Amino acid sequence: MELHRESKIPLYQQIKDAIRLQIEAGDWRPGQQIPSEPELSEGLGVARGTVRNAITELVHEGWLERRQGDGTYVTRRSLEQRLMGFYSFAREARERGQELTSRVLEWTTVRCSEGLARRLEQPAGEPVLHVTRLRLLEGEPVVLESCLIPAAVAAPLREEDFTQGALYDALEERCGVRILLAEESFSAITLGAYEAELLQVPPGAPALSVERVAYAPGRHPVELRLGTLRGDRCRFRIELR
Amino acid sequence: MELHRESKIPLYQQIKDAIRLQIEAGDWRPGQQIPSEPELSEGLGVARGTVRNAITELVHEGWLERRQGDGTYVTRRSLEQRLMGFYSFAREARERGQELTSRVLEWTTVRCSEGLARRLEQPAGEPVLHVTRLRLLEGEPVVLESCLIPAAVAAPLREEDFTQGALYDALEERCGVRILLAEESFSAITLGAYEAELLQVPPGAPALSVERVAYAPGRHPVELRLGTLRGDRCRFRIELR
Repeated sequence: MELHRESKIPLYQQIKDAIRLQIEAGDWRPGQQIPSEPELSEGLGVARGTVRNAITELVHEGWLERRQGDGTYVTRRSLEQRLMGFYSFAREARERGQELTSRVLEWTTVRCSEGLARRLEQPAGEPVLHVTRLRLLEGEPVVLESCLIPAAVAAPLREEDFTQGALYDALEERCGVRILLAEESFSAITLGAYEAELLQVPPGAPALSVERVAYAPGRHPVELRLGTLRGDRCRFRIELR
Repeated sequence: MELHRESKIPLYQQIKDAIRLQIEAGDWRPGQQIPSEPELSEGLGVARGTVRNAITELVHEGWLERRQGDGTYVTRRSLEQRLMGFYSFAREARERGQELTSRVLEWTTVRCSEGLARRLEQPAGEPVLHVTRLRLLEGEPVVLESCLIPAAVAAPLREEDFTQGALYDALEERCGVRILLAEESFSAITLGAYEAELLQVPPGAPALSVERVAYAPGRHPVELRLGTLRGDRCRFRIELR
């Protein structure tokens, strides 16, 4: 790590940038313990408090995690998804031999608002199944999501279809609807108190908001899904040509 | 909006979920003013404080913005990027007729760490140009990014190449290096004090962390870029088949 004392960028920020670069470049790997604050402070020749400020911000931001009485580690993003084509977390976890389980928090029917009616190509006022579930990877909560599916399509679905296996498999087997295409959008948000508690992180922790519309052949929209993914656990990768 | 008083989900969270759905479904559009807190409280038949809690969290999380003495509006994500192929914010802004400007905050040379050496396929210790810049869309700061390019490649580059036009155009014209492929990864973070001040948002505001490795033909890595994008302004869209 190189610090520039004559720079306009404050020292604590230079330390943060250098640590982020160490992580992104792969010098420090996910799950690896990083040097202690006294070691960093001595190695860089800066005050202990400056290092502590940098580390504290990096913990809040999701880059590092402190383990009680056991030092500081690089965050391990356990849910890494390649955006190569239509994906299902459940199918991919199964392929990787990871355990992905889901818990239904709410199962209700709502009436289509005008916007929802447009997105799902339903008449306004039509009933829509609204299921909210918490998804756990290897026992750790990582995704909170709401699935909205027109009730006419969703009628054969049962709670197990949202807790076991992939919902898209159930849609195909029970409802005769095959999903081949989805449009997604990604943005960054922070978590409110209720969501943070469910995802077992502090309020204000970062999260990815992922909105998906899934389509059956003929580009018929079948599902609107609003996902909230723990920022310190999830990452998407893509190759752009 | 429908609230379920018998639900396990607290009322303020149901209001939040309903508002997020109104936004994602397109009932409330970006830049649109939403009903006032008294109107929402009366319409939903819930206490004013419950509505206020919901709105306050949605503002912190980046979904809504309060304008002094002028009500609450749906956040306008001015930088929406389709992930269809290799993109450059500068080129796309030009095509859309938006003004994208950049300000160089730091211009320095660092030595390749082992991780950086691996990512850039350089010998460890080789000099690498490290430029940090703030990018403004229509005058508003939206992206803070560091570009790392081997000094041997970057030698002909000047400050203007990072502030005017697209860096990839300059790499092609001045350095004879054409970028055709990039690998990106996305995660959600929050902003520390220094970054938040530069991006003109409160500390702790959400941001997208975008890491890019850009390749010349033959898959030779030319640039590692670490971007921090304002969560309330940026969104990525993708179609998955």
